Amino acid sequence: MSTEEKELRVGMVGYAFMGAAHSQAWRTVNRVFDLPVRARMSLICGRDAAKVAEAAGRLGWAGHTTDWRELVARDDIDVVDVCTPGDSHAEIAIAALAAGKHVLCEKPLANTVDEARAMVAAAATAQAAGVRSMCGFNYRRVPAVSLMREMVASGRLGVIRHVRAVYLQDWIVDPQFPLVWRLRKDKAGSGALGDIGAHIIDLTQYVTGQRITGVSAITETFVKERPLPVESSGLAASADGADGAPPATGEVTVDDA
Amino acid sequence: MSTEEKELRVGMVGYAFMGAAHSQAWRTVNRVFDLPVRARMSLICGRDAAKVAEAAGRLGWAGHTTDWRELVARDDIDVVDVCTPGDSHAEIAIAALAAGKHVLCEKPLANTVDEARAMVAAAATAQAAGVRSMCGFNYRRVPAVSLMREMVASGRLGVIRHVRAVYLQDWIVDPQFPLVWRLRKDKAGSGALGDIGAHIIDLTQYVTGQRITGVSAITETFVKERPLPVESSGLAASADGADGAPPATGEVTVDDA
Amino acid sequence: MSTEEKELRVGMVGYAFMGAAHSQAWRTVNRVFDLPVRARMSLICGRDAAKVAEAAGRLGWAGHTTDWRELVARDDIDVVDVCTPGDSHAEIAIAALAAGKHVLCEKPLANTVDEARAMVAAAATAQAAGVRSMCGFNYRRVPAVSLMREMVASGRLGVIRHVRAVYLQDWIVDPQFPLVWRLRKDKAGSGALGDIGAHIIDLTQYVTGQRITGVSAITETFVKERPLPVESSGLAASADGADGAPPATGEVTVDDA
Amino acid sequence: MSTEEKELRVGMVGYAFMGAAHSQAWRTVNRVFDLPVRARMSLICGRDAAKVAEAAGRLGWAGHTTDWRELVARDDIDVVDVCTPGDSHAEIAIAALAAGKHVLCEKPLANTVDEARAMVAAAATAQAAGVRSMCGFNYRRVPAVSLMREMVASGRLGVIRHVRAVYLQDWIVDPQFPLVWRLRKDKAGSGALGDIGAHIIDLTQYVTGQRITGVSAITETFVKERPLPVESSGLAASADGADGAPPATGEVTVDDA
Repeated sequence: MSTEEKELRVGMVGYAFMGAAHSQAWRTVNRVFDLPVRARMSLICGRDAAKVAEAAGRLGWAGHTTDWRELVARDDIDVVDVCTPGDSHAEIAIAALAAGKHVLCEKPLANTVDEARAMVAAAATAQAAGVRSMCGFNYRRVPAVSLMREMVASGRLGVIRHVRAVYLQDWIVDPQFPLVWRLRKDKAGSGALGDIGAHIIDLTQYVTGQRITGVSAITETFVKERPLPVESSGLAASADGADGAPPATGEVTVDDA
Repeated sequence: MSTEEKELRVGMVGYAFMGAAHSQAWRTVNRVFDLPVRARMSLICGRDAAKVAEAAGRLGWAGHTTDWRELVARDDIDVVDVCTPGDSHAEIAIAALAAGKHVLCEKPLANTVDEARAMVAAAATAQAAGVRSMCGFNYRRVPAVSLMREMVASGRLGVIRHVRAVYLQDWIVDPQFPLVWRLRKDKAGSGALGDIGAHIIDLTQYVTGQRITGVSAITETFVKERPLPVESSGLAASADGADGAPPATGEVTVDDA
Repeated sequence: MSTEEKELRVGMVGYAFMGAAHSQAWRTVNRVFDLPVRARMSLICGRDAAKVAEAAGRLGWAGHTTDWRELVARDDIDVVDVCTPGDSHAEIAIAALAAGKHVLCEKPLANTVDEARAMVAAAATAQAAGVRSMCGFNYRRVPAVSLMREMVASGRLGVIRHVRAVYLQDWIVDPQFPLVWRLRKDKAGSGALGDIGAHIIDLTQYVTGQRITGVSAITETFVKERPLPVESSGLAASADGADGAPPATGEVTVDDA
Repeated sequence: MSTEEKELRVGMVGYAFMGAAHSQAWRTVNRVFDLPVRARMSLICGRDAAKVAEAAGRLGWAGHTTDWRELVARDDIDVVDVCTPGDSHAEIAIAALAAGKHVLCEKPLANTVDEARAMVAAAATAQAAGVRSMCGFNYRRVPAVSLMREMVASGRLGVIRHVRAVYLQDWIVDPQFPLVWRLRKDKAGSGALGDIGAHIIDLTQYVTGQRITGVSAITETFVKERPLPVESSGLAASADGADGAPPATGEVTVDDA
């Protein structure tokens, strides 16, 4: 890579499950693809100073901070990568767009339709000033998915009349799995629908090149009460109750299936 | 089979697709299963005298008639097997039950909810007099289905939280396939939903031992106009247009997917 | 069916597993297919007089005998259907061909290559006199198999370079399943290879239209000793040991996998 | 990562298909796994000076050379990663082991059994001096494979009697695909057998914990002549013939299926 190559200086908010996954992507992308810009892992942000410092070292970020507003404001950041739970997506993304940063925001985009509309409006305004934004529907770039999209677009599969899609995960099938943030409406907005259903809804539109115009659905919360978590990261968590006492529990406030 | 064996004298209405299938079942059942009664293929009924006579010979029925009211009224008939399109199910079945005949009625049970309710009421009344009735959900006796039901009932599969079921047929995928009775609301009541969807709805309840308490659905008619049929039987049909002129067409009045 | 229709008078040797299956076929064939001859289930032969009489009634045969030589010799038999274990195929089939009967012989054709060669020679001689013979590879007429053969023949699948075929059955997976005749080399000739492997070898040739020109194989007998059977029929059997004593056992003399 | 952390200084021979894949692994491993050593991508070796320099920059290697003997001899290299075609595996690996370097050698291990035996002997001698060696069967660490091995080892799957494994690739299905080194016996030793069959042979042993004690096989070369390649890398290649003339061709000297 020549020294004249343009840098894309990345600031990422969040360092756990998706933060680690996006770090792997930022670290790898220029090693595999021939791109006009070079990603630079500049700054990572998290609320716990010690943990974010550790994550910065482990994941390969040049700097770290506990203040996402500082990250959004800094002149040496070109793109803000939002990897937090859904309840902070709108605030961070809108602030970043207002500061002229490109934004990559994890899915589901927002916890409410109102938030999502505000984000889309902010992105439209920013776009007029040359600022780009996108939502992190990562499966679009799976080679088989891209090929499928091409096959549909070329007409090889004829008229698409039905799409059947299932996305199954089993990490909460155990009723004793703790009440992590993904199972709390105030944090995650919805449950399986937003967390993984969002992907198949997006892929349906992406692969077919069509827009969904009607919906019909039933959701359910099969496990309504779960132990409170002591620690959790990504899709793993542990519950209290080490001394033999039953762990305190809380209500599951989203759909879990 | 001893001469003292009790006979079950069958009268069947309809002789085409399902009529042929049921004939095969009546002809075979005592050869495979050890049963307390012996099925006797007594009488078959159809509207076309020549065709029903031919069918009686080919399928192995002792007699034939063009009048289902005669069939229902005869003293030497024990069970009436209704294999007609859905628009005559209610009338025939209710008359047969009133005449004290056991009734096996093909699915879908009826073309409207009102008809179905009247049939269920007639069956309940008849049951008090020892008359039995059932709807022809033939897949229940597929060995794999029966085994699945046993596995669920025994608890081997744990709590059943989802059932995913698809029943796909391709016989109307060609837009030039004619407008057979199964595609006309006045004859069939509904399209794919009643014709094959009925089976997976039934099997869901049969296999799980649970009742469906809520529904959510989208149906569609993808091919809205089709050539009128000249001849049709079962799932095969031919359209007019032999002299090169485009065939006359008609409107598909049911869901086709 | 008109009275002028030509009859095909069938004599079947064997009445158990394959005998019951072939009876179902003979009983059904004219009800489903439009054929130039009408099958007549004339005579069934088995070694046990009481059992063969019972089978004749249950399966629908007009007569029964315990002497296959009588069956082969009778003037009123047109085709001999050999449904016995493999150790009697050659003797019965060759005698039937010599008597001018058409022969349908269950697979595997013979227990040794020498027997098979003798049978092929007898069939060739008989063919010159208008007598037909075939081996009962029943899967050839499965609609999906026939369609596959057509697709290959028409070139739609291109050049066929590999065929991967597995035929799995689980009825002897339990080491306590008895030592039925199919597991004894003197009766069956071979084990899984001849019993079910024969089908996929045949289908490979049938579907591709090519001949196998080389083979490479490993066979194994995983369960080398099994309880002696008290009763067995088809793929079901029971072993001795009702009074709590361990059942007498015998050596498995064929491959079982 | 603390500064006291022990480094594992890697020298890699080969920089194309497997070289790029191994580079990704060396670059990532400490970001994902908590390890007692830190991999350092020290030196990469290739025959073409310009191409290896470009690859070093793109893949993230600190230095580059065109002489594998220099790489093997250097004091600041701890492990030699052999990613060349099979015809140089034995020479490089044995030299590296003799120089006291740990060796990771791509599969298939060698082009002949004699070479493989010499390598195993060299590895055994080196092991006595604390030098480690392994063959690059990368699929062993696929999570599903590791889980399968655990399930077998724990007895959950019972006695393993058969393993059915297929590994299919389609990159040479086109007869016009060029005669790359993987299709030449002098370079690759064998074709599909060594290239991908090696993996399923290894995985069979790895997953079951058993050793293969007998083999039976048929190999074939379906496409016997192919265009000579102009350029190739990994599983992609282009053939001569740009000016319209048919490209020069050569003989495929390995099995291709």
